[in-house]
Parts: sequence; C-alpha cells; structure tokens
Amino acid sequence: MTLEHFINEAISPWMLDDGPDKDIVMSSRIRLARNFANVSYPILADQEKLEEIRSFFEEEYAHQSFQSYENLEFVSIPELTPVEKSVLVEKHLISPHLVKFTQQGAALISQNEQVSVMINEEDHIRIQVYFPGLQLKKALEHAFNFDDWLEEKVNYAFDETKGYLTSCPTNVGTGMRASVMMHLPALAMSNQINRMIPAISQLGLVVRGIYGEGSEALGNIFQISNQITLGKSEYDIIEDLGSVVNQLIEHERTARTHIVERSEMKLQDRIFRSYGVLQYSRIIDSKEASRCISDVRLGIDLGIIKNTSGNILNELMVLTQPGFLQQYANRTLKAGERDVLRASLIRERLKLEK
Amino acid sequence: MTLEHFINEAISPWMLDDGPDKDIVMSSRIRLARNFANVSYPILADQEKLEEIRSFFEEEYAHQSFQSYENLEFVSIPELTPVEKSVLVEKHLISPHLVKFTQQGAALISQNEQVSVMINEEDHIRIQVYFPGLQLKKALEHAFNFDDWLEEKVNYAFDETKGYLTSCPTNVGTGMRASVMMHLPALAMSNQINRMIPAISQLGLVVRGIYGEGSEALGNIFQISNQITLGKSEYDIIEDLGSVVNQLIEHERTARTHIVERSEMKLQDRIFRSYGVLQYSRIIDSKEASRCISDVRLGIDLGIIKNTSGNILNELMVLTQPGFLQQYANRTLKAGERDVLRASLIRERLKLEK
Repeated sequence: MTLEHFINEAISPWMLDDGPDKDIVMSSRIRLARNFANVSYPILADQEKLEEIRSFFEEEYAHQSFQSYENLEFVSIPELTPVEKSVLVEKHLISPHLVKFTQQGAALISQNEQVSVMINEEDHIRIQVYFPGLQLKKALEHAFNFDDWLEEKVNYAFDETKGYLTSCPTNVGTGMRASVMMHLPALAMSNQINRMIPAISQLGLVVRGIYGEGSEALGNIFQISNQITLGKSEYDIIEDLGSVVNQLIEHERTARTHIVERSEMKLQDRIFRSYGVLQYSRIIDSKEASRCISDVRLGIDLGIIKNTSGNILNELMVLTQPGFLQQYANRTLKAGERDVLRASLIRERLKLEK
Repeated sequence: MTLEHFINEAISPWMLDDGPDKDIVMSSRIRLARNFANVSYPILADQEKLEEIRSFFEEEYAHQSFQSYENLEFVSIPELTPVEKSVLVEKHLISPHLVKFTQQGAALISQNEQVSVMINEEDHIRIQVYFPGLQLKKALEHAFNFDDWLEEKVNYAFDETKGYLTSCPTNVGTGMRASVMMHLPALAMSNQINRMIPAISQLGLVVRGIYGEGSEALGNIFQISNQITLGKSEYDIIEDLGSVVNQLIEHERTARTHIVERSEMKLQDRIFRSYGVLQYSRIIDSKEASRCISDVRLGIDLGIIKNTSGNILNELMVLTQPGFLQQYANRTLKAGERDVLRASLIRERLKLEK
C-alpha cells in the first residue's frame, strides 16, 4: 500500500526541489474547483450519486500516470484512521473539510505529492498543484494541463457568462484559488506584517496562517491567496498575486538587512537560543517549536547557521504537528505526551544533520 | 609577578580537590579576626601606623611558606587596577571592604589560594582558610595553626574575659566567622529555602547569597555562617553550624529525589534547556547565566548531564562576574558588552569539555 509513503515522510518529494526565492516563498499552489454538469454539489447530492463519482475516479485514474508525476494513488478517506487523516491534512494533501464533512471523500495523489485531486469535497473535484518557490505560472500551466486531461472524460459544469460553476459562490468563474506560502520572520519581528495585512486585503487578497482559514501564523509562515475568482482571467489573477508577493519578498529582504545591521548580536542571540532550544528541550509545544524553527530557518537563510539545510525546517514544521506525531508513535497521544515526543523527534532529526 | 595567576584563573587550585558532600557544599571557610594590641583599629588609626603594619607583613611574610601552602604572595591593594581588585573580590580572596575603605590595604595569599590574610581591613588582620566540601573542623585547625604561626611575631589584642578584641563588637570573643557555601537548587525550586531561612536565623546563623552581605542568592548558592562569636568555643560554633548544614544537605537530597520522582521530564527539560542556553546564547546577563549554571550543575549531580565536570561550573560562576570579564577583555566594559563577552566565554569554556 503506497499510502504509507504519503504518511511516513513529513516532507513531500517535490519540496526538495529548488525554486525561485525559495528562502522566502516556500511553495506556490494552484487549486481549481470543478464540478460535474447536471449533478448536485456534494452538500446536496445523494450518497449514491457521490459514490458513483468516487468510483469513477477510482476506476479511471487510480494508478494512471499524469505526465512526469508517476502513478496517481487513489485514497479512500473514510477508510483512513484518524491519525492518517490528520497527517494528510498536515501535509496539505487534503483539506480538513474533506475529512470532516464527506462520507464519499477520496483523493488522487501523485507519487511525488505535487498533484492532489480531492473528490467530493465542497466541489466534486478540486485539483491542487504545488511548486517549490514562487512559480505560480508554472503551477497554473500544470493545473490547466491536468484539468484538460480530466476534461477528456468529465463533463464540467460550466456557464458561458459565469464560467465554472462551484458550490460556494466565492469560487464561481475561474474556480481558481492561487496561493503562496511565505516565511516572513523579519516582517513579523519588526511588526510590519500587521500593518501590511489590511493593505493586502484591500487588493482582493487574503492573508492566513500556515494551516488555512482562521489559523494563526505559526512560525511566521503566511499564506497569501486571491479572494476574487470572477471577472479576471487566471493569468491576470496570478499576475496580481505575484506582484504583491514580489513586493513582500522585497520588504522582507529589506527588513532582514535592517535587522542584521541594527542589531546583529541580538538577532544572533535569538537565532542561536532557538537552535539551542530545538536541540536540547525535552518538552516543547507546537507554538514554541514553530517559533524556534522559524528563527533557525532565518539563521540558515542569513548564513548565521551553517551546515543545516533549510529543508529540514519545512520537514520539522510538518513532523511536529499532532497528526504526524501520533502517526510516529502509532497511537493517540495526549497534549503533554505530544510535547515530549515533539521535542524528542526534533532532537533526533537535528542530530542527523551533524 | 605571581599576582597574575590569582587574576587569570577563575577557579582557585584548592577548589579542584575533593571534599565531603561536595555536590552540595561547595566550600567551607574559617575567618579569624585579629588585631595588634595597643594599636587603634584601622578605622581610627593614623595612616603611618597602618603603613607600619602593612610593611611588617610585607617584610616578614612575603614569600615565606606556611605548611604545604607554598609561598605567601604579598599583594598591595592600592597598586591594583580596578579590574584586578574586582577579580580578587570575585574569587573571595579579599573583601569589597578592603578595596573600598583602606589606603593601606594588603593581602597575603598562598599559592593555592587556600589561605588569604587581609591586612588593614576592618581589623588589622583577617585570616581566611578555605576547604572544598564540608570540612569546617579541618579548616578551623588550619586557621588555628596559621594563627599560632602569626602569633609568634604579633602581639594580639586579647582580653581574658572577652577574648579577641575586634573593631566591630559582633566579632568580639572568638573573632571567628565560619561559613559554608551551599548549592541548594532543589530547595530553591520547591520554595522550601524561603521557609527555612527564618528558622536558620533563629539558631543564630545567617543565610546570604554567594557574594556576601545583602547579595542575592545568585545561582541558588547560599552562604550559611555563624552570627554569634561570643560565649561559645570555636569548636562548639562550627559543630552547631555543621549540624544545620548537615540537615540542609539532607533536605536538599530529599527535595532532589522528590523532584526527580514527581516531574523528571520537566526537570530534564529545564536542565537541558539551560545547558542549551549556555552553549548557544550570544548575550547573557549574570543572573540568567547563574540560573543556568545552577541548573546544569544540578543536572551533573543527578547524572542527567554526563561528560561535564561539576568544577567547570564553580569556574563559570567566577569567570562570568564583571571583574573577571573585564580582566579577560583587558579593558573596562559596559553592561551590554559584558553580556556578550560572558556568553562567548561560557560557550568557549563548555566546548573545551567535549
């Protein structure tokens, strides 16, 4: 069962590849919402109808290969253990919604985890494509290719004036949500990010924490995505998003330079203390772990910490989430137990780097 | 100039020797206050008279050897730089009083720093003898031997009923102040020490921090000494002090066992985090350094931290004091600069242990 490798490795294979501005932009994602024509949206549809859709994907696409992504693995969500579900959510391969609200939920996930298609989520089909660094256009092109490939067999719900029809009206039109995950420690340290968020919102973009809607910006990781899906082409939308992201990159770089110039010793102290906490603590909650991981990541980017790869921190961010910890322990864990295991996993992982 | 070795090494040679209960009792000290008969106490005496006393010691005792302590080095206090003065105070070889209030202050210090005689402090003569661990009786015997040796040439101010006469009435009688330096982290963590201090005071003993009167208990190091010098023999006084110290040792051991049993993981977390701070911080003030050193010392005593010697922490406690840091830097340092140098010295010193 290849599900195991999605579950056991904290870092998705595609994350190891290089990408533009990868020190600040961790990943770019394109998500396309699609629905079958003449079938009610999952929230209203009969279970049998949804089961049909699910079976269709299992039969048509399981183990088929799309481009260089190798086989698509069909994952039946209701058959997963609660811990397996959490792990896939923590890896952003599926959404919390798919886990919570659907009896007929499924996913097609490519071997390198770069493509993931959720079935019977809020919409019948949600295609997600990830790229490392800032590569929105590349991700969009790949998503379009995938979309075209699906469309050979699926009759999409589409309206000539409105565009793609979706369950939630906020997705109607392009059905596209483009987002980038950014590590903005210097803008956070200097409190600039809080002033920037309202301005970004006025541009029709949304800023969230790493784990989606309503989540806190754990580890200074911010997700920026488009709010508007209608009245603009997909390419225009990602161009607007990309231009804001580029400005944020520039601001973050300036803020980093300022911090280094103004208080290098203080910054070094903070970064190295966090490194010490990760290497020595025996009990650590996810908030503190994220904060320390963010500091160390900044230290690596600034050349203050050497001989440790930046990827390890992407990995640790996922590895130290509750689901992953429980997968690792092979049992459910209380919060206190998780804090102990988290500390131990981080220590072991950092030792491997030396 | 052999003064250099007093100044450059943070740890006195005698501290490296073993002693009973050395994991809790860092050192035992006997201090005997003596004065010349028919000479006013330093506070009232003419400068010429004090200069005579000072010269007497320089001529009679400099480079003489007392027992196995090797040569006594004569140190003229007014000739020292401010930093050198601080270093000798931080090593407890001289008192702050000797530095501040006397034009004719001097000291005779034995090569291994176990015997130090202050001249023209509050009294004409103050003999100090140190022993590692709990060895009050041994220290007293050595102090008596030294006292007898001096008395061959010095005519002491002595009264048949009152005993030794001293500048401050609180020292009259035996002129003896016996004290032990104890590391009591478990009693401090469990807040028991604060309840014990008033009880100890009622027994005619005084509890202070590591740097004497009015000083805070930096690094959970407490100095316990006798208050009463009159109406009891020296041996009775140290027996009473010793019995309280033994009780404190027992309480500390019980408290350590309790902490380990009740919350071993929490304790490990605290100890290892402190170890991490000492190894990684770039800025550290003396309060935090002392706290971390105390935690790590406890970790070594409990076998939680291995491959690091307990002595290193006695050394670090002195090494990280302002005077020592400035001696090391070879210039006066502002508080902020000291915090940076302190962190760097601690890191370098801990690296040597690996």
